[in-house]
Amino acid sequence: LQDKKLAMIMLFDFFGELLTEKQREYFDLYYNEDLSLSEIAGDAGISRQGVRDLIVRAENALLEFEKKTGVVERFMALRSSIDGIEADLRRIHDTTTDETVRNTLGGITERLEALKG
Amino acid sequence: LQDKKLAMIMLFDFFGELLTEKQREYFDLYYNEDLSLSEIAGDAGISRQGVRDLIVRAENALLEFEKKTGVVERFMALRSSIDGIEADLRRIHDTTTDETVRNTLGGITERLEALKG
Repeated sequence: LQDKKLAMIMLFDFFGELLTEKQREYFDLYYNEDLSLSEIAGDAGISRQGVRDLIVRAENALLEFEKKTGVVERFMALRSSIDGIEADLRRIHDTTTDETVRNTLGGITERLEALKG
Repeated sequence: LQDKKLAMIMLFDFFGELLTEKQREYFDLYYNEDLSLSEIAGDAGISRQGVRDLIVRAENALLEFEKKTGVVERFMALRSSIDGIEADLRRIHDTTTDETVRNTLGGITERLEALKG
């Protein structure tokens, strides 16, 4: 369940603006603000089932965008490659005594971290 | 014009599957296969203007996807960061005499290249 939540939040981060305004609003309250379906329904003055339907439609739309573009998968693969590169850089960093090399490697690792963000 | 073409091909690479089948087909013939509007019109048995309208609609749809997601910009920024990192790695590579370090750096540069693909 936690994995689904993380996946949904990542999909929303990339494709959220492609949803309808209502889908985006309820999705955000549910996944990012952690409100329950009943709480959202109460605030919006519609049924719990109505909120649920909208969120499911939003989830399906996000999954469809990913199926068609593969963008999130591409970024995930990228992060995992960067993790591997960082591990290699750390090994060099920890074995070399050359201060200039160590500093440059430290700077590269920082920039790689930023790429994952 | 060449810049617009490159931008369009990149947008199509990311978002092409979100277009309608007809938009995708004509866009691909025009931008990737380099057919003229008249050639596409002749093959499809519709007017040159009809082909043009469809391609313009496809272009606008692709630009709108990018405006809403920023995905292509994100990848472009990524590539440019990687270029900078590769330059740093090359500098270390060319100044160090440690063969193990040199080999590891070579491997990292190869993996960074693959990330840009």
